[in-house]
Amino acid sequence: MTTVRVITVERDVQAQARESAAEFRRKMAEQGTLVVNVLSSPGAGKTSLLAATADHLHARARVAVLVGDIATDRDAQRLAAHAPALQLTTGGACHLEFPLVEQGWDALKAPEIEILFIENIGNLVCPASFDLGEHCRIVLLSTTEGDDKPAKYPKAFRTSHAMVVSKCDLLPYVPFEPTRAAADARRIRPDLEVFETSTRPVAGLEPWCDFLMAQRERILRGEPCGQRR
Amino acid sequence: MTTVRVITVERDVQAQARESAAEFRRKMAEQGTLVVNVLSSPGAGKTSLLAATADHLHARARVAVLVGDIATDRDAQRLAAHAPALQLTTGGACHLEFPLVEQGWDALKAPEIEILFIENIGNLVCPASFDLGEHCRIVLLSTTEGDDKPAKYPKAFRTSHAMVVSKCDLLPYVPFEPTRAAADARRIRPDLEVFETSTRPVAGLEPWCDFLMAQRERILRGEPCGQRR
Repeated sequence: MTTVRVITVERDVQAQARESAAEFRRKMAEQGTLVVNVLSSPGAGKTSLLAATADHLHARARVAVLVGDIATDRDAQRLAAHAPALQLTTGGACHLEFPLVEQGWDALKAPEIEILFIENIGNLVCPASFDLGEHCRIVLLSTTEGDDKPAKYPKAFRTSHAMVVSKCDLLPYVPFEPTRAAADARRIRPDLEVFETSTRPVAGLEPWCDFLMAQRERILRGEPCGQRR
Repeated sequence: MTTVRVITVERDVQAQARESAAEFRRKMAEQGTLVVNVLSSPGAGKTSLLAATADHLHARARVAVLVGDIATDRDAQRLAAHAPALQLTTGGACHLEFPLVEQGWDALKAPEIEILFIENIGNLVCPASFDLGEHCRIVLLSTTEGDDKPAKYPKAFRTSHAMVVSKCDLLPYVPFEPTRAAADARRIRPDLEVFETSTRPVAGLEPWCDFLMAQRERILRGEPCGQRR
């Protein structure tokens, strides 16, 4: 009896969170702000990619970043030179949830932003289960993690619209086959877009940034960025 | 009222799990099996380190591995050439819990093992909160993840007895300062042991394996491997 009651409460809370996230998604599309949720393992290079992406998009779109971490505000400090950035600190929690994102967006006070990135906690598992009100979900896979990760952490890849392979500058030194990683990931999600990038030196950002701009065009036309899973 | 009841149930379950894990730890110490819980981000090189460690310890200790993954049995297949290995598949869960470890140990049917490694799910957050009945907890940090990770994911480092820096062969190509990472980690846990290793080629395993053998001596003498946090 106790258990049944608990499940009911939990469902109500989750349903409410889903509705709030969906409403945020609608509102952000109406005002022309593309929201991008960025997932990866710790140290795959989310902050470096977003800094380089903000620089690359400088003349094409106004960009801001809500950056999640368990502790420290180091990433927001790093990003501040490239784009308006606000740190979301979870104090231990392994993923971001929508209410913190909404508070962050309100605190950012930047309604004119055209692309809002949400840099999630470095964790290839838990963040995949939470809708942050994003239009588009991205998963980074660094070449140093190995090309077997899509099969081993399937949900992050199944729920993402695109995979950004990061640290391609290290390909000569690591046993990573980009074609194998892409094939593995597309067994999990056949329509996954794949981009090969590096930030030391910066390379491969043009197709990735074109993809982002195309996603913004889609939401302006009232189309979703792709199937939500 | 419902909430209070739920918290009570939850506490009972957790207390029971803690007791079972503590009992397993005592039993394994009595029979001379050191249990080592290995944490890291996805792709930091846990499987490669354990394969190389099993080879290196070949003449000194009988080693086995319980290897956790969300999906696939690729890691157990990789390890099988180096040591008895058994895959624990969580089917989605972001960390291992004690009951699955106990089942794995029973299924392994290898009571003569002197060091049992538990390769946790690749996740630098959630596994830090679960006692698997280990004597010794290890966290791997790969040089490609960046030296800022101890400060950003403190619990994994605070609850570990040693940090193994992996992929030191890539140090010439990445912005990682081993001394800075060690200092950062020791601000979180002052008595943390630190080992610098690589597996391509194999290097730095001697001090790491000496540490493991010394930990086994400790449990044989009835001493803990260090403070539990």
